[in-house]
Amino acid sequence: MNNTSLKHLSIHEKQSIASAWFMSLRDQICQEFEKIEKEFGSDPKFERKPWDRAAGGGGEMSIMHGKVFEKVGVNISTVYGDFRANFAKEIPGTEASSSFWASGISLVAHMASPRVPSVHMNTRMVCTEKLWFGGGADLTPTIEFEEDNRDFHMAFKNACDKFDPSFYPKFKKECDEYFFIKHRNESRGIGGIFYDYFNTGDWQQDYVYTQEVGLAFLQVFPQLVRRRMYEAFSHEEKEKQLIKRGRYAEFNLVYDRGTKFGFMTGGNTEAILMSLPPVAKW
Amino acid sequence: MNNTSLKHLSIHEKQSIASAWFMSLRDQICQEFEKIEKEFGSDPKFERKPWDRAAGGGGEMSIMHGKVFEKVGVNISTVYGDFRANFAKEIPGTEASSSFWASGISLVAHMASPRVPSVHMNTRMVCTEKLWFGGGADLTPTIEFEEDNRDFHMAFKNACDKFDPSFYPKFKKECDEYFFIKHRNESRGIGGIFYDYFNTGDWQQDYVYTQEVGLAFLQVFPQLVRRRMYEAFSHEEKEKQLIKRGRYAEFNLVYDRGTKFGFMTGGNTEAILMSLPPVAKW
Repeated sequence: MNNTSLKHLSIHEKQSIASAWFMSLRDQICQEFEKIEKEFGSDPKFERKPWDRAAGGGGEMSIMHGKVFEKVGVNISTVYGDFRANFAKEIPGTEASSSFWASGISLVAHMASPRVPSVHMNTRMVCTEKLWFGGGADLTPTIEFEEDNRDFHMAFKNACDKFDPSFYPKFKKECDEYFFIKHRNESRGIGGIFYDYFNTGDWQQDYVYTQEVGLAFLQVFPQLVRRRMYEAFSHEEKEKQLIKRGRYAEFNLVYDRGTKFGFMTGGNTEAILMSLPPVAKW
Repeated sequence: MNNTSLKHLSIHEKQSIASAWFMSLRDQICQEFEKIEKEFGSDPKFERKPWDRAAGGGGEMSIMHGKVFEKVGVNISTVYGDFRANFAKEIPGTEASSSFWASGISLVAHMASPRVPSVHMNTRMVCTEKLWFGGGADLTPTIEFEEDNRDFHMAFKNACDKFDPSFYPKFKKECDEYFFIKHRNESRGIGGIFYDYFNTGDWQQDYVYTQEVGLAFLQVFPQLVRRRMYEAFSHEEKEKQLIKRGRYAEFNLVYDRGTKFGFMTGGNTEAILMSLPPVAKW
């Protein structure tokens, strides 16, 4: 992309570029996940389901039920309009106007094998009177492998370090703080990175950083899946995974900001709750 | 009980009487549910697990995993202390002081058969600068039988009508409004009754009414269980039940006031979330 031209972009051009990227990333991820299923000897495809938001915009769900990916959802959406008054208060840049625009990609994968970690990735651009990026990725293994945890973190550290050495430690910490199940006094998983209200003053750099986060996910997660998907697992390990998924559902329903944002902005319930596990136990 | 003596009860005497009742009701219910399991040819027992609340009080969980009751929890608790400042604002009678006392019984049964309805019952007494009773019971069938729905509602209507003919229609409506899953635009179940901040000015009558609600539950729910527990069910019906349970978990984690009260007052997480289904699907 041409650096000079990006410096003079209008807000509408920025919005078009960002939502086109989220769509392209969605396509690349879905293709890669289908490829993994094929390697495993399965042949499921993502099913696409578009939805419209009455008050402006809409999105597209992509969902696949496979032999490796027990349930994986990859959503993109671009929504706009006005925040409800009581919700606007919680969002920066809404003092003068409650209008907003938001676009993003959101992915949750619940894996058939308890030896393959669950994963969540989300990046987004939000405009009110302010503009920012947000997102991140985090891993939720049932059975922890040091090698997997290390590679996952390293992928995002490398992505961050291309921009600013302070990003990774900061966003790792934010991730650990965010994905914490207070009422259980336990972490949802082993973390990753999480950033929000991100605006360094250089839109292009922030946009490219957000692309890097998505690409780091696309590089590292398939590696972990391929590493573990053929390993045999026990009934006890599967049961442990189902309990871990119960905790996952608790976090998403009690605390998750994205779930709340979706409900409060009249998003599509099916898309918002696609993150919930196919089966969970308590 | 002697009417005259109750008129002169101190607040502490009222508290003792109420918590003793919740304990007695717990015992009667557990005994009856174990009896049902025995009739079915199973022999599980409730396991009791007491817990202490660091800031004052505690409770006792009773949980049974049976052949009829896939998972049933019956909790009692009596807790007291000070509300956190931001939570006190949401509770009546906390203008001058944030201190509170609360005692109650809470029951959720998730049944093995999708033809036997899930049920929830809870009654409580709460004291701040004010004093009130609250609670109710509601039914969540997967497969609806008009006879069951009618008998369930009738039991609570009869209990209410002994006191005031306006209670049942009012509390039925409150139940329908409360147990509504907004983001799904659907009811959690087929309702029952729900009452809160209940204080007619006659403590004794309010207390006896709360007893009646518990006894109505004890009379009607075992009837429904015995009516349906021997019926054969299909795989499709069981799957439908697991999806229904997912919705149940959503309601409890996103909206339930009792869950929130528990978290905000530092209750026992295991006890608070005993309401969650043993297995659920999305």
